Amino acid sequence: MMIIMKPGSTQVELEHVLDHIRENGLTPHLSIGEDHTVIGAIGDTHAIPTALFEVLDGVESVIRISQPYKLASRQFHPKNSIFPLDGFNVGGDEIAIIAGPCSVESREQLLDTAQAVRSAGAHALRGGVFKPRTSPYTFQGLGEDGLELVAEARQLTGMPVVVEITSITQLDIMLKYVDVFQIGARNMQNFALLSEIGKTQTPVLLKRGMSATIEELLMASEYILSGGNQRVILCERGIRTFETATRNTTDINAIPVLKALTHLPVILDPSHSTGHADYVTAIARAAIAAGADGLIVEVHPDPAHALSDGRQSLKPEKFVELVKQVGQIAEVIGRKLAPLATTEATQTHTSKGI
Amino acid sequence: MMIIMKPGSTQVELEHVLDHIRENGLTPHLSIGEDHTVIGAIGDTHAIPTALFEVLDGVESVIRISQPYKLASRQFHPKNSIFPLDGFNVGGDEIAIIAGPCSVESREQLLDTAQAVRSAGAHALRGGVFKPRTSPYTFQGLGEDGLELVAEARQLTGMPVVVEITSITQLDIMLKYVDVFQIGARNMQNFALLSEIGKTQTPVLLKRGMSATIEELLMASEYILSGGNQRVILCERGIRTFETATRNTTDINAIPVLKALTHLPVILDPSHSTGHADYVTAIARAAIAAGADGLIVEVHPDPAHALSDGRQSLKPEKFVELVKQVGQIAEVIGRKLAPLATTEATQTHTSKGI
Amino acid sequence: MMIIMKPGSTQVELEHVLDHIRENGLTPHLSIGEDHTVIGAIGDTHAIPTALFEVLDGVESVIRISQPYKLASRQFHPKNSIFPLDGFNVGGDEIAIIAGPCSVESREQLLDTAQAVRSAGAHALRGGVFKPRTSPYTFQGLGEDGLELVAEARQLTGMPVVVEITSITQLDIMLKYVDVFQIGARNMQNFALLSEIGKTQTPVLLKRGMSATIEELLMASEYILSGGNQRVILCERGIRTFETATRNTTDINAIPVLKALTHLPVILDPSHSTGHADYVTAIARAAIAAGADGLIVEVHPDPAHALSDGRQSLKPEKFVELVKQVGQIAEVIGRKLAPLATTEATQTHTSKGI
Amino acid sequence: MMIIMKPGSTQVELEHVLDHIRENGLTPHLSIGEDHTVIGAIGDTHAIPTALFEVLDGVESVIRISQPYKLASRQFHPKNSIFPLDGFNVGGDEIAIIAGPCSVESREQLLDTAQAVRSAGAHALRGGVFKPRTSPYTFQGLGEDGLELVAEARQLTGMPVVVEITSITQLDIMLKYVDVFQIGARNMQNFALLSEIGKTQTPVLLKRGMSATIEELLMASEYILSGGNQRVILCERGIRTFETATRNTTDINAIPVLKALTHLPVILDPSHSTGHADYVTAIARAAIAAGADGLIVEVHPDPAHALSDGRQSLKPEKFVELVKQVGQIAEVIGRKLAPLATTEATQTHTSKGI
Repeated sequence: MMIIMKPGSTQVELEHVLDHIRENGLTPHLSIGEDHTVIGAIGDTHAIPTALFEVLDGVESVIRISQPYKLASRQFHPKNSIFPLDGFNVGGDEIAIIAGPCSVESREQLLDTAQAVRSAGAHALRGGVFKPRTSPYTFQGLGEDGLELVAEARQLTGMPVVVEITSITQLDIMLKYVDVFQIGARNMQNFALLSEIGKTQTPVLLKRGMSATIEELLMASEYILSGGNQRVILCERGIRTFETATRNTTDINAIPVLKALTHLPVILDPSHSTGHADYVTAIARAAIAAGADGLIVEVHPDPAHALSDGRQSLKPEKFVELVKQVGQIAEVIGRKLAPLATTEATQTHTSKGI
Repeated sequence: MMIIMKPGSTQVELEHVLDHIRENGLTPHLSIGEDHTVIGAIGDTHAIPTALFEVLDGVESVIRISQPYKLASRQFHPKNSIFPLDGFNVGGDEIAIIAGPCSVESREQLLDTAQAVRSAGAHALRGGVFKPRTSPYTFQGLGEDGLELVAEARQLTGMPVVVEITSITQLDIMLKYVDVFQIGARNMQNFALLSEIGKTQTPVLLKRGMSATIEELLMASEYILSGGNQRVILCERGIRTFETATRNTTDINAIPVLKALTHLPVILDPSHSTGHADYVTAIARAAIAAGADGLIVEVHPDPAHALSDGRQSLKPEKFVELVKQVGQIAEVIGRKLAPLATTEATQTHTSKGI
Repeated sequence: MMIIMKPGSTQVELEHVLDHIRENGLTPHLSIGEDHTVIGAIGDTHAIPTALFEVLDGVESVIRISQPYKLASRQFHPKNSIFPLDGFNVGGDEIAIIAGPCSVESREQLLDTAQAVRSAGAHALRGGVFKPRTSPYTFQGLGEDGLELVAEARQLTGMPVVVEITSITQLDIMLKYVDVFQIGARNMQNFALLSEIGKTQTPVLLKRGMSATIEELLMASEYILSGGNQRVILCERGIRTFETATRNTTDINAIPVLKALTHLPVILDPSHSTGHADYVTAIARAAIAAGADGLIVEVHPDPAHALSDGRQSLKPEKFVELVKQVGQIAEVIGRKLAPLATTEATQTHTSKGI
Repeated sequence: MMIIMKPGSTQVELEHVLDHIRENGLTPHLSIGEDHTVIGAIGDTHAIPTALFEVLDGVESVIRISQPYKLASRQFHPKNSIFPLDGFNVGGDEIAIIAGPCSVESREQLLDTAQAVRSAGAHALRGGVFKPRTSPYTFQGLGEDGLELVAEARQLTGMPVVVEITSITQLDIMLKYVDVFQIGARNMQNFALLSEIGKTQTPVLLKRGMSATIEELLMASEYILSGGNQRVILCERGIRTFETATRNTTDINAIPVLKALTHLPVILDPSHSTGHADYVTAIARAAIAAGADGLIVEVHPDPAHALSDGRQSLKPEKFVELVKQVGQIAEVIGRKLAPLATTEATQTHTSKGI
């Protein structure tokens, strides 16, 4: 941590900063420039907020040199984290595709979609039952009833299921049904929820908040990792900017940046990051070309009657094409699609949620 | 709702849209332009997502004409909502000032600050016990132990207390101690929490999310209002932009815009919206000049030893000056500071939390 | 154009709006909803600002239905614009790559880089001589002297040259030397400059402003197109957002969105859009995967001694790899790299700039 | 400047950085932390880009400690810059108000407005004749013909005139007519124009670009100051953010931040920063409360027939009210409105532009 003193700060102020550094278990190191004196605070600073020094008299600003995250950092864990999920791996050379409807709406809708995406080459099924909606007047999800349908789709297709959790109060019931917890963008900094999830061993798909920096996403993952749950998949899903031509702005830069900073798997959600079915396939290709480890894609058999996110949902036939193109892009960069779930994979998991 | 058809869309597509409008209980009204056909969907549309029509073949875009919020809207409730709080009113002609430390850290720190802000002219006391912190390695608040201290400060000063709630699981204990729930920026779209708070009758200070639009803030309030709790105070606390000279960008425009759109009281938090004690007083003056109904300000007796947000906390003597200046600004625009809490006010509430 | 009246607006206000519509050569069409009356203003509205109606009493808002651009719109020009440039085409099936240093610094630096990028497979050479720098104290470019060097590199390699113009006063001298004018991000709305460039027939590479919307980029191109110059190449170069991990945020969505809205060629600049050499190749691959028609990439033989933008410049050996990977991605989506410039191409152009 | 080495960087890389620091006339100072070695580069660094070191092998990042601007900095010029303008001062205790139409449209419109704003208490007249418009199909200003009208309004009212310059080619004619050059937001980084203006002695009102940081605004002013023209007034006019309820987001924080960083006068344009006449007065009050030295406000006698920016223009009677309220706010913070222009002031200037 570097502490920059104001031009004209006094010797007394400087001494006070030096004392404060030592009080916090760090070693000060002075560097006197033309206008500014800069003090290095040397030691393990990842748990020390910069604010601790910013408030001292005579201090102009404080700059963190070491990353504030540890467990997520590639610096301390250079190899990719790879973890198995029902017959395929996430985070290795293979590309994983999660697909399904935004919301579980009915048995028929979910099972049809599940079979369609499985045939098209998806590796896991998504489907929300507790929906965070901007308006209290719109469809809020089927709730617990939806979980039974998810379990049925799981058994039918052999695919693991990814379901969003929006409250700690859902944790116990979800643990019975779900293979991967999704933490949505709006809950990326719901630290109470992250901490509870960190106490489980269920894999987590952690979506970036719509105005979260890459560093904040990594700090959010640190809440889960520091709880003991090492299986976190990060997901770029578009950020909020001034551009209104698309629902969000896909931060494609985040893919190579995250791959450089962390060992955790990184996937992209082109459905939310564009908000428009017409652009999903192009951005899915771009994500894999940029180095993403997978995708999560909204697919609906009848988008015109979807109860949420219809506009950004692909019809199954478009999704078939997406999987094919993405597979070809993967090969160009020396990767390939993960193998598909088999009946055996299914059977080893039927104990869950049925 | 206006549905704009693509140039070149077919008659069959048009008929399908018309049917869909009727199926949803609305009446279609056609308007044929040079390039585009536009269809008005007339009726009560506030609970109908635009997505319902956006996904139909031939549709280019859908524009909402009516506001998607009802209970928060000044259109249906032209008069300001005013509600009483321990001897003063919020939302009327009087300006209310909430002040206190970011976090409750110790008995001495809280009681000293409470007495200092009361003497300076604050009307209510803030102080967090469950702290949403970016890093899992920094101070997370005193938790329930802090609530006892809050209750003591409340009794000592006669001021109502505003405390942030970060999880549904804290609701029962908080109800015993707290006069106003604060929903922090990170939880503005924690809809599960908003819904539960909506079932209580405790006033709520709802902070705008750091990347939430004004409309989304109003929709979040709608979750609380539609649950039956009418006492919502909206709080602008700065938004996230590209500018890094300050922690956030105070959206001062939001003050007159919110006052035009809603009957709910609107206050501003200059501590978070600037992130720097040096700028808090100037922005507090600006808020009142722009028409805000109050302020929430971080004050700490010893910012250099604050466990959170020290950099943006005012020392009590600076806060005295802030209250004085704000009071003078209020008079210029025909308002005044609310009267201070009295011992009597205190005594009528001592049943709570002690 | 749709004009939405305020709830409670009067008949007199309505009549006044109807008159105003007719005065502007449009036909009004009324649609009466529950809360709002909406008036369609039918006719050719692309040259009519919405503000014309927004200011009338009783009007709540005005929504443009037709695009405000015409010549750039794919609606009126469905086929891709393809235009030839020294032996290759821009805007067709072939991918074009422009490469070279940020600034022309010396004869040796430019000629070395030009030959290196040509060998690696670049189709055109970039190199700035008038540099828009944030600080007046840093290198501002070689100015006119640099143009002689550009001409020499052009003759040596047979590649057309792309050079940024920053002022109308440079136009005459630049016309003698340059094959493609670059309009930089900071000048995207320098309308005086755009208008002058529109009077020439020299192709233009128009970069998106760092906070320009996609629509504003198209409107800027309209200034050039409406002057009579049809050869405009659009360039996404990253936008300014809250994220600080990269210099800019690559708006990869802009690629498929622009390809849908306009017939003009669309390329991407991964050097500026990331600001970091480590990420350039990944984002170059993503751009082509998303459907871009080409790339413009900064390459420098010795980035550590570059006078500008060294951090984001690729070394020639990294650029070789980029071209190879981009060529493979192109094939996956049914495209290929444009053929390389030949000596003949060179000779037909040696009359220029020498 | 602090250079942070990557964890694991080699001794050879370190030596190379140290050499590079010395080559650039600076003195290196080493500080060895747990993960990172940090090197201070001590000396006059304001003209040295951080990129110079960022590109070196083994370097993780480079942080500037000293401000990159000098002439604009309060550090080197602690007292406020105050300069006289036709009978009143800008930058001192007095508040100056510039008002007038967005565009000069006709003799009658301009003279009426000029007299109205003068009666209401304005100190200077604004009025554009070269208009930077997003669309090439809308009114582009009266051009040079408008300047004659501006001169007439100047003589009639005795007020100095502020006119936007959009191209170097307008400089000679403008110098004959204009008391203050306005540089618009879109030209804030038109460095060619800034440099030319820097060679004159005419005061400049420099508007912040819609996505420019505060530091970039100060660097833009540095282009003018370093040319020899010391009379620069900075103007906050709203920045571009995700919020769409207003045309721009008024960055009210910029007022106290700029007053802390620079000695130059700072004013605010509430017309552009809100985009809506209904909010202009509230934000004007906020600006003065926050410490601004003045305002620039759009006023039009008949906004419904304004050729540009009608929606955000105040009618004269509303402007009267604004001036009154702003004057009262000024007094609360120990300032007052500047005295009004007198006939004598007029006469000493009639040699110009007539």
